[in-house]
Amino acid sequence: MPVRKEVLEGFSKLSSEEKREVISALFDDKGVKKEFYSYLYNDEELRSDFLGFSENTISSYHLPYNVLPNLLLDAELLHVPMVTEESSVVAAAAAAAKFWFSNGGIKTVSLTNIKVGQVHFISDLEQSRLSELIADNYATLKHSVAAYTSRMESRGGGIVSMQLLPTVNEQYQLMVEFKTANSMGANFINTCLEELSLSLKAIIESAGFTCDVLMSILSNYTPNCCVKVAATAPIAAFDGLVRGMDANVFADRFKRAVDIASSDIYRATTHNKGIMNGVDSVVIATGNDFRATEAAAHAYASRSGKYASLSTCNLSEGYFNFELELPLALGVVGGLTSLHPLAKRSLELLGNPNAERLMSIAAAVGIASNFAAIKSLITDGIQQGHMKMHLNNILKSYGATFEEVEKARLWFANRKVSNVDVKKFLDGQRE
Amino acid sequence: MPVRKEVLEGFSKLSSEEKREVISALFDDKGVKKEFYSYLYNDEELRSDFLGFSENTISSYHLPYNVLPNLLLDAELLHVPMVTEESSVVAAAAAAAKFWFSNGGIKTVSLTNIKVGQVHFISDLEQSRLSELIADNYATLKHSVAAYTSRMESRGGGIVSMQLLPTVNEQYQLMVEFKTANSMGANFINTCLEELSLSLKAIIESAGFTCDVLMSILSNYTPNCCVKVAATAPIAAFDGLVRGMDANVFADRFKRAVDIASSDIYRATTHNKGIMNGVDSVVIATGNDFRATEAAAHAYASRSGKYASLSTCNLSEGYFNFELELPLALGVVGGLTSLHPLAKRSLELLGNPNAERLMSIAAAVGIASNFAAIKSLITDGIQQGHMKMHLNNILKSYGATFEEVEKARLWFANRKVSNVDVKKFLDGQRE
Repeated sequence: MPVRKEVLEGFSKLSSEEKREVISALFDDKGVKKEFYSYLYNDEELRSDFLGFSENTISSYHLPYNVLPNLLLDAELLHVPMVTEESSVVAAAAAAAKFWFSNGGIKTVSLTNIKVGQVHFISDLEQSRLSELIADNYATLKHSVAAYTSRMESRGGGIVSMQLLPTVNEQYQLMVEFKTANSMGANFINTCLEELSLSLKAIIESAGFTCDVLMSILSNYTPNCCVKVAATAPIAAFDGLVRGMDANVFADRFKRAVDIASSDIYRATTHNKGIMNGVDSVVIATGNDFRATEAAAHAYASRSGKYASLSTCNLSEGYFNFELELPLALGVVGGLTSLHPLAKRSLELLGNPNAERLMSIAAAVGIASNFAAIKSLITDGIQQGHMKMHLNNILKSYGATFEEVEKARLWFANRKVSNVDVKKFLDGQRE
Repeated sequence: MPVRKEVLEGFSKLSSEEKREVISALFDDKGVKKEFYSYLYNDEELRSDFLGFSENTISSYHLPYNVLPNLLLDAELLHVPMVTEESSVVAAAAAAAKFWFSNGGIKTVSLTNIKVGQVHFISDLEQSRLSELIADNYATLKHSVAAYTSRMESRGGGIVSMQLLPTVNEQYQLMVEFKTANSMGANFINTCLEELSLSLKAIIESAGFTCDVLMSILSNYTPNCCVKVAATAPIAAFDGLVRGMDANVFADRFKRAVDIASSDIYRATTHNKGIMNGVDSVVIATGNDFRATEAAAHAYASRSGKYASLSTCNLSEGYFNFELELPLALGVVGGLTSLHPLAKRSLELLGNPNAERLMSIAAAVGIASNFAAIKSLITDGIQQGHMKMHLNNILKSYGATFEEVEKARLWFANRKVSNVDVKKFLDGQRE
C-alpha cells in the first residue's frame, strides 16, 4: 500500500484531527483515518490530555500493560506493572520472582540520590582564580536560584554542591549536584542551571573577566543516583531447580556466564540489554523516561574503561550472591507520572512508593530478568522458553486460524519452536 | 488509594479477563477494572492478538503516535512516525528537519549489515587445535543448520563466518557472523546458534575431547551492523537561523558543544540520550526492540575505552559537517513489525523500506534530534523550547481549567516557563 509523496506545508499548525486527516490522505486505504482514530482513548477528556503530551500526535501506540505478581523486595510483597512488547520478558521475570520469593526475596543493598548538572563556559580567567571567585560568591550563586530551590528544599532537596572543573579546549564547567526529592528533576535542574549561568556570568564579568556561557544542562549520567540490589541464597537452594542439574553445577555455570559478560563486550551488551528489559518495563509503566535510564545504565557499564556487565556473581562458603548495581534517576511526581492515567495506577499498584523505593523496585525487576535469562541460557537455552512464548506471534504471522493455533499449541508443547518448524507444521495442516 | 497486599496464587494460569479482575480487586477504587478494560483496543480481534504479544497483560499502555513531516533523506521525502511520550522531542526534530530540508537534506554516508552470535563453551582441547578442528569441520557445522539457513540464504542472508576466540577462565567461543536480510534476526540467530552448539559438541567429542556448552546467544553489540548519516552545509547556511547570532559563531559554538560531548562522560550521556530520543521513537513506531538499539548504541559509544558522543562535528573550508554513526539492528519483517497494527502502518507511511533503509531513517531522526538539542543549548537554552511544549503538562498537573489554560498560554507566550512560575501565575488567577 504505497503512500503518496508530497510536502506537508504548515503541518504543525493543524489540529490533531486535521493532522490525522492529512496523514490518512497519504494512504490508498481509506479506512486508515478511522483506524488511527480508533486507537485513541474512548474518554474524550483523557484523549484531549493525551494529545497534549507530545506534538503532531495523530493516534495512540498501544503497548501491553502487564503485571509481574509476587515480587518479594526487602520483605515487602509487590505486584509490579511492566510495559513491554517483547514476548517472554514478563513470564521470565515472574518465574525468577517466584524462585526468589521462596528464597528470601530480593534485597536493596545501597541507594544514593544525587543528580548532576553542568554550566559549560569559556573564560579568560585562569582555573585557580575562577575556583576562588566561585567559592567567594557561593552564597550569591545559591541566592540567584532561591526562587526555584526553596520549594525543593522544603521537600529535602536542593543544591548539594557546586564546583569548577576544566573540560576541553580551555573551557570550564560549573558542575552542580542536586537532590530532587520525589521528582526525576530534569526541569528543575535545567531551570536552576540556566539561572545559575546568568549569575555566574555576572560574577565573572564584574571581576573584569570574560564569561561566554556555552550551555547549561543536566546530566543523565548519575553514578551517585544509583541503586544496588542483591539476590542471595545458599547454593543448596538450587537443588531441584533444574531437572538433572546439581545445585553446585548450576551455580558454577551461572557464575561463569556472568563472568563472561564482565569481560566480553559482545556478551555484556546483551546481558545488560536483558537487565534493561525488566528495568525499562517498570520505567515506562510509571511514566518515567527510559532513554534517560538506558543512557545512564550503559554509560555506567563502561566506567572502568571496558564496557562490562552491570551485575556480578560471587560464590563463597556455600553461598550464591548475585548483585546488580545501576544508576537510575526516577520520579514519582512531575513529568507524566501523574498525568498518564496508567502511570498513576502503576504507582498506586506499587503502594505509592517514593522515588528511591521505585529505584529499588525497577532494579529488582532488572535482577529478576537477568537471573531468568542466565538460567535459561545455561540450561535449556534461551529459545525454548522464549520461542514458546513467541509461538502465538509466529502462528499469527502465518495467518493461522483459531483451530490451527490450538493444534499448534498441542504439537509444540514438548517440541522446539522455530519459524521454520512452525511453517512446516502449518503447511502439513493445510495440505 | 492504597492497594491490598496479598499473594496472588496461580496468576499466570488465569485468563486476561480474570487477571484484570484479580488486579483490580486489589484497588479500593471499584472503577479501576472498567478503566483497565477501556484502554484496550475496541476491535475484538485486535484486542485478542494484542493480549498474545506478552504475558499477564491486563491493559494497553498508550503512548503518543506522532508524525515528523518533511524529512529529506538521500533526496527522498519522508513523513516519519515517532512514538514518544516526551514533550518537545517531535517539535524539535521537526524544526531541525525543516532547516535541513532547505539545506540539502540528511545523507546516508555508510551502512553495514552483519550481526553476531556466540556459542560459549569449555573444552580440554587447546586453542590452536580447536581452531583447526573447526576449520576442518566448517562444512559440517554449516550443514547442521541448513534447515534454518536455506530460506534466509534465498533472501541474501545466512552465515557469513565462524571463528574460534578465547574468552576468560580458559573458556572459548565460536563467534558466528550472520546476515539476516530484512529481519532483525534475533530468533533466527539464536535458533542457528543452539543447533551449531550441538554440532560443535559432537565434533569435539568425536575427536576425543570434552566440550561443555555454556550458552548460545546472539549479541546485541553490532559494530558491523552500523549506519552513518551526515548533515552538511556551507557555514553561511546558518545566516539568519538564530537571531543576533552570526553563522560562524553558531558553527563554532556548535562544534564546541559536540567536542565537549566527545570528552566528558556527563555531557556525552545526555548528548547521546538526545540522539536516542529520536532513534527510539522510530524503533518503537515500527515494532522494533528499543532495548536492543539502546544497548548497542551506548556500548558502541564506549568503544574507545572512554564513553563519548556518537556524533562528531567538523568545520573545514567554510563547511559544516555533522555526522552520526551508530549500530542499529532493525527489522521490517518478523517480530511485531507486521503484527502490531500501527507498526505495520508506520512501515507503510515510510514507503515500506527494507531493513537497511529503516536504519538510515532512524539515524536521520537521531541526527535531527541531536542537531535541534545542540542548537537550543547553545542559543536560547534547552528550557525555552522544552518548557513551552511542557506548559500544558504543568498546567494539567495543577488542575488548570480550560479558561486558565488559555490565559496561561497567552501569558507565557513570551515569558519563561517553569513549574514555580506557572504555579505563581495560577495562584494569581485564583486569588
